[in-house]
Amino acid sequence: MTDLAVSVEKVSQAHIDSAKQRQLSLTKPPGSLGVLEEVGNRLCGIFGQTPPPSLDLIDVTVFAGDHGVVGEGVTPWPQEVTVQMLSNFVTGGAAINVIASVVGARVLVVDVGVASDTSLLEGLVQRKQIFGTKSICSEAAMTYREARGCFEVGRDVAKDLIRSGSQLLVTGDMGIGNTTPAAALIAAAAGVDPKEVVGRGTGIDDLTFSRKCEIVEAALMRAERSTASLDDPVALLSELGGAEIAAIAGYVVGAAEMRRPVLVDGVIALSGALVATMFSPLIVDYIFAGHLSTEPGAAVALRHMGLRPLLTLDMRLGEGTGAALAVPVLRAASNILSEMATFDQAGVAQVKA
Amino acid sequence: MTDLAVSVEKVSQAHIDSAKQRQLSLTKPPGSLGVLEEVGNRLCGIFGQTPPPSLDLIDVTVFAGDHGVVGEGVTPWPQEVTVQMLSNFVTGGAAINVIASVVGARVLVVDVGVASDTSLLEGLVQRKQIFGTKSICSEAAMTYREARGCFEVGRDVAKDLIRSGSQLLVTGDMGIGNTTPAAALIAAAAGVDPKEVVGRGTGIDDLTFSRKCEIVEAALMRAERSTASLDDPVALLSELGGAEIAAIAGYVVGAAEMRRPVLVDGVIALSGALVATMFSPLIVDYIFAGHLSTEPGAAVALRHMGLRPLLTLDMRLGEGTGAALAVPVLRAASNILSEMATFDQAGVAQVKA
Repeated sequence: MTDLAVSVEKVSQAHIDSAKQRQLSLTKPPGSLGVLEEVGNRLCGIFGQTPPPSLDLIDVTVFAGDHGVVGEGVTPWPQEVTVQMLSNFVTGGAAINVIASVVGARVLVVDVGVASDTSLLEGLVQRKQIFGTKSICSEAAMTYREARGCFEVGRDVAKDLIRSGSQLLVTGDMGIGNTTPAAALIAAAAGVDPKEVVGRGTGIDDLTFSRKCEIVEAALMRAERSTASLDDPVALLSELGGAEIAAIAGYVVGAAEMRRPVLVDGVIALSGALVATMFSPLIVDYIFAGHLSTEPGAAVALRHMGLRPLLTLDMRLGEGTGAALAVPVLRAASNILSEMATFDQAGVAQVKA
Repeated sequence: MTDLAVSVEKVSQAHIDSAKQRQLSLTKPPGSLGVLEEVGNRLCGIFGQTPPPSLDLIDVTVFAGDHGVVGEGVTPWPQEVTVQMLSNFVTGGAAINVIASVVGARVLVVDVGVASDTSLLEGLVQRKQIFGTKSICSEAAMTYREARGCFEVGRDVAKDLIRSGSQLLVTGDMGIGNTTPAAALIAAAAGVDPKEVVGRGTGIDDLTFSRKCEIVEAALMRAERSTASLDDPVALLSELGGAEIAAIAGYVVGAAEMRRPVLVDGVIALSGALVATMFSPLIVDYIFAGHLSTEPGAAVALRHMGLRPLLTLDMRLGEGTGAALAVPVLRAASNILSEMATFDQAGVAQVKA
């Protein structure tokens, strides 16, 4: 295992129990709000507070990195699109900006490992650890030290946001080619065949698809023959990861360490979250899965963590879009517990279940 | 068929087509926003405008009625709960108030057919047509004239709201016992066996459940032997409906006549929507299904109309809660088309599909 010390407490079962009791006192048939009730109860366990606080300050963090594996022909999109999209994020023109605005969340964009110089991009948070990864099918994505650096960026960002009042963290990502390392990480961490996790990404043809399957298989075989222990999450990130994925893993860990919920997006975010849960099995209780991406690896990662996605809208854009769109579900779940009248308060006759 | 004149235009295919073109120009891989893109395109067709307007003014209308069938033991909840909940709605303590507030929608509560006098309830819109329905297993719920009156209340409310600027109507309902007439209406309108549509409602035991199945079967058999034409939606509502369900049918028709989208809730709303579509097959294109209720009749009605629910969160409360929670999906779908940058605007390299 890793030498990196992670300290996560168990969510409060006492507060989950008191939330369940409170649900029964509210003016609705028992259980009638379904998943909203489960989400609300878990929020109480996370915050250690029943009812939970109103989720007013919400941050989407888009971590960005580039991937050497794009040189292998896994995507038709040129690598320059990563930095072009960062420019789009900071000027507010991307899908994540629109959706974050609809749900009342802020968007922070962090360069962790983009291949080109982004220092002139105003509004971008500069935390670059590497100028892109190496191609994972022929060598490790990055060194252990670099992977740890990327992880710590995400963890620091999470803790800083929470210290400044953020009540809910949402994961976002940008990195042309990043469904390939995400698939490799999920296959390795969940112990499944590459064929089960490789998908069409941004939309690729049959030839590119079979090429992508071969790349992931080759990367896994190479990593298994390396000197790194793939049970060590940092080593796994260094072998098969991406800078932004390592940062997302750190971000998830940071949120759990600070006892705050983290809402994760599609397959990229789930690969990071899955690696995060390798640090401690307690971490999964701090994670909410925003949506089910159409990328096959997403379902595999969700199943492995035992998480149910809140939305299933056939989205596969990344950036944090699917997670951000699920924010109102968490907000409603929280406010149900804090704002609804009880049977006694409302003078409504109660039928005992 | 009915003598009631309903005038609905086809949604604009030209605007759906221009929306599809616009989607391809926005900074995201083609199709990557999945259902959000389909929803956005259809909004353009409904409004006859590409991009569609920002959905700023949104109204949830909770129509309320009582049901004679509660005398048959189909629910453990006493009928007084209907009016007690209306009081809860107008004072803001119910689940629908909390969720509407989260998504930025207003809540209007309309008495169409509550069994008791509600005139002292401040904030309630008084449009009462009947003091509760008759028990549908032994006689028609209401007269043709009454059913038409309830329908016109919903249609008027929809048109008034739209005239005063509402851009999206959301259905809500309150009426103890109303899953029973909803099941009967869906079985009749979709031509399926009662066993496929009867559910556990607010949560009932096995004995009450089998009683409820018998009641729905008896009601259907009685209606089929009546002098009413069940192909006439107003006659169907009069035989098997409820006041609030008839109003919801009118509300859906009114929205479509005014070329505005209507977001429908669970099984009660879907029974009304299904009846609404009997007036014209063009109406379904104005309907968005907010969620998939756990009540089995909901899935039957959705399938019959060819609608895909936006959320699946195991909710079964009614009031409009599941539909209201889906509002951000429509808002995001709309704003994606109006606010996202194009590839040209953002200077992002585009890959042709």
